Amino acid sequence: MAQARGYAAHSPTSGLSPIDFERRELRPDDVAIEIDYCGVCHSDIHFVENDWGITRYPVVPGHEIVGRVTAVGADVRQYQPGDIVGVGCLVDSCRQCEACESGLEQYCLEGSTGTYNGIDRHDGTVTFGGYSNRVVASERFVVKIPDTLDPANAAPILCAGITTYSPLRHYGVKAGDRVGVIGMGGLGHMGVKFAKALGAEVTLFTRSAGKVEEARKQGADHVIISTDPEQMKAAREQFDFMLDTIPAQHDFNPYLQCLKFDGTHIIVGLLEPIDHAIHAAHLVGKRRVLAGSLIGGMPETQEVLDFCAEHDIRCDIEMLDMANIHEAYERMKRGDVKYRFVIDMKSLNHA
Amino acid sequence: MAQARGYAAHSPTSGLSPIDFERRELRPDDVAIEIDYCGVCHSDIHFVENDWGITRYPVVPGHEIVGRVTAVGADVRQYQPGDIVGVGCLVDSCRQCEACESGLEQYCLEGSTGTYNGIDRHDGTVTFGGYSNRVVASERFVVKIPDTLDPANAAPILCAGITTYSPLRHYGVKAGDRVGVIGMGGLGHMGVKFAKALGAEVTLFTRSAGKVEEARKQGADHVIISTDPEQMKAAREQFDFMLDTIPAQHDFNPYLQCLKFDGTHIIVGLLEPIDHAIHAAHLVGKRRVLAGSLIGGMPETQEVLDFCAEHDIRCDIEMLDMANIHEAYERMKRGDVKYRFVIDMKSLNHA
Repeated sequence: MAQARGYAAHSPTSGLSPIDFERRELRPDDVAIEIDYCGVCHSDIHFVENDWGITRYPVVPGHEIVGRVTAVGADVRQYQPGDIVGVGCLVDSCRQCEACESGLEQYCLEGSTGTYNGIDRHDGTVTFGGYSNRVVASERFVVKIPDTLDPANAAPILCAGITTYSPLRHYGVKAGDRVGVIGMGGLGHMGVKFAKALGAEVTLFTRSAGKVEEARKQGADHVIISTDPEQMKAAREQFDFMLDTIPAQHDFNPYLQCLKFDGTHIIVGLLEPIDHAIHAAHLVGKRRVLAGSLIGGMPETQEVLDFCAEHDIRCDIEMLDMANIHEAYERMKRGDVKYRFVIDMKSLNHA
Repeated sequence: MAQARGYAAHSPTSGLSPIDFERRELRPDDVAIEIDYCGVCHSDIHFVENDWGITRYPVVPGHEIVGRVTAVGADVRQYQPGDIVGVGCLVDSCRQCEACESGLEQYCLEGSTGTYNGIDRHDGTVTFGGYSNRVVASERFVVKIPDTLDPANAAPILCAGITTYSPLRHYGVKAGDRVGVIGMGGLGHMGVKFAKALGAEVTLFTRSAGKVEEARKQGADHVIISTDPEQMKAAREQFDFMLDTIPAQHDFNPYLQCLKFDGTHIIVGLLEPIDHAIHAAHLVGKRRVLAGSLIGGMPETQEVLDFCAEHDIRCDIEMLDMANIHEAYERMKRGDVKYRFVIDMKSLNHA
C-alpha cells in the first residue's frame, strides 16, 4: 500500500477537503502513477453534489489524470518508470465481452469501472480519482502521453477530448462535411478543433453573440446565434452532422431541422430525459438520426492523444491550485472558464 | 384528357363519395394506367379527415396502386400497354438534387410530389390518387409488378412494404441480427416477413397476448408482450434493431433499453412529437441510435417488389368493394384488419 493524499467530498454539502488514504499494492498488470495534473470535468461537480443520486461518499473526483510512472507490476510491458502517462474516465471493465473485445470498454456489457466512484472488480473498494497525488491503474487503462504534448494541456483530452473525437470518428466525419458544434465549453471547443482537423467546414451554434470572435479563434468557419430565428431558418437542411455538447435541457428540434437528409445529431452532453418533445417527423421525413456517444474506448483514447500531437491540437486550460477548487466549481457553473480548469497537483503539498 | 371516376372526400366530415374528374393528356414520359387494385393506408384516413391540417379538398386518396398500362408517351422506354405496373406514394420530384440523383426521391430537396394531395410540378393541379379507375404517372415513378406476384397482394408493398423494407436494408440487417418489430399491423407484419427473409432472428413486440399465435404464423421467432414488465426486463440489451411501426404515441424508452450497445431504433410509424420524453442516457450510455425512415425511393421500390417475388413474400390482404370504404376505415381505426384492405377497383363500376 502507498499513502496518498487527495481532496474528497463527504456529503452533497460538505464541499471538498483534504483526505489521506491508501492506494493499493501493485497487481501484476498495474501501473503506479504520481499525478502531475488533473482536469476538472463538469461531472465532477455532479458527483460531489450527488446530482445523479449515485455518489458513494467519500468521493475523490477527477478523471483527466496525467502523471509519471513510478513503478509497474511484474506483467506490465508497455510502461516503465518515468513515462508520462494518462488515466481517463475508466480504470477497468470485464475485458471479455463483445464491447471490450472491440476496444469499446466504455460500453462493457457488465459495466465498466469508473476512475472514481466505481467499485473495484477485485477487492470491492470504491475507486478514488485524480484529485490526489497518486493513482494505480491497470496497464490496459493507461495511455501514453505523446512527447510533443504539454502534459497539463493533455489532461482534458482524456475526457473532453475523447468525448468529442470519438463520435466524429465513429460517424466518419471527413473533408467537405458540414459540421455544426452546439455549445462552446470544454467539450464544444474541442469539438470545433477536431472537426476542423478532420477537414470539415465547422459552424459553432451558440446563444451568446459574445462568443463569435472567440469561436473563430478556435477555428470555426461560421457562427450561428441559435436564439436568432432568421439565422436558424437559414441554416435548415445545411448540415451533415450536429455535435451537441450542451449539458442542459434545450430544444433539439431546431437543430434537427438544420440537418440535411441522412444527417446525424450526436448527443454527448446531456444525460437526462429530453424535455422538449422530439418531433418524429424531423427524423422520419429526412431519414435523420439522433445518436448518443459516451467518452471513448482505450484504443481510441490513445488515438486521440496521438491525433492531438500530430495536428497540434491542445485543450485551452486555466491552471488551478487544489485549494481553489470551490471557486473553480462556482465559475464552471457560470460557464466562466476558457475552457477547462486543470489542477496543478503540486499545489496539493500546501493544501 | 381522359375521363376518370374515383372516390373523394370534400371536407373532414364529408366521408368519401363518387367523383368524376379528368386525367391529364400523356406527357412524353407518362404512362397511363387502368387501376385494378388500390391498397388502403392509414394515412388515407389522416388525409380524408385532415388530421395533419394539410389536406386539399377534394381529396382522392390511394397510393398503393396496381394496374395495367393502357398507353405510353412518346419517350417511354420501360413500359408498354398490357404491362402490370404499380404506382406508390410518389409521382414526381425535382429529379436533379442530391437525393433524387441517389434514387431517394422521397427526400427530394425541393419536396417530392405525393400521389395524392400533391401539387403537379408542371400544371399546378392537385394530384388525385388511386381510389379511382385510372391514373397517369411519369415512367420514373412507375414500377413493374413481377409476373409471379399476385397483383392485389402486391399493392400494399408499394407503401407498407417499402416503408419497412427500406430501413432494414439501409441499416444492413443481416443473418444473425436480432430484430424487434414493434406492432403488427399492415407495416409490422411486413416488417416481420422482411426481417426473417433477410436472415434475422425476429421478435414481435405487441400489447396483445392474442397476437402471439398469429405473430408466429407470420414468421416471428419470438413474441414479447410489451405490457409485461418481466418480459421487457428480460429483453434488455438483446436487440440489434427495433423496427417501430406504431402510428400512435408510446414510450420509446423501454424499447431503447432493449437495444444492445450500438443498436438502432427505427421509427417508421409516427409523425408527431414524441410525447414521452426520450432519456438521453439511453442513447449516450450505449451509443444507441434513434432513426427515422420514410417509405423508399423508386429504385428500392422496384427492388422490394422483386425481393417479394424472389422470397415469395406477400402482404396479407382483405379485398374490399369501393362502396364499403367507410366500414373499412372504422375497422382500421379499431385495428380490425389482417393486415391491409385492398380495394378491388372493378367494384367502382357499380359504386
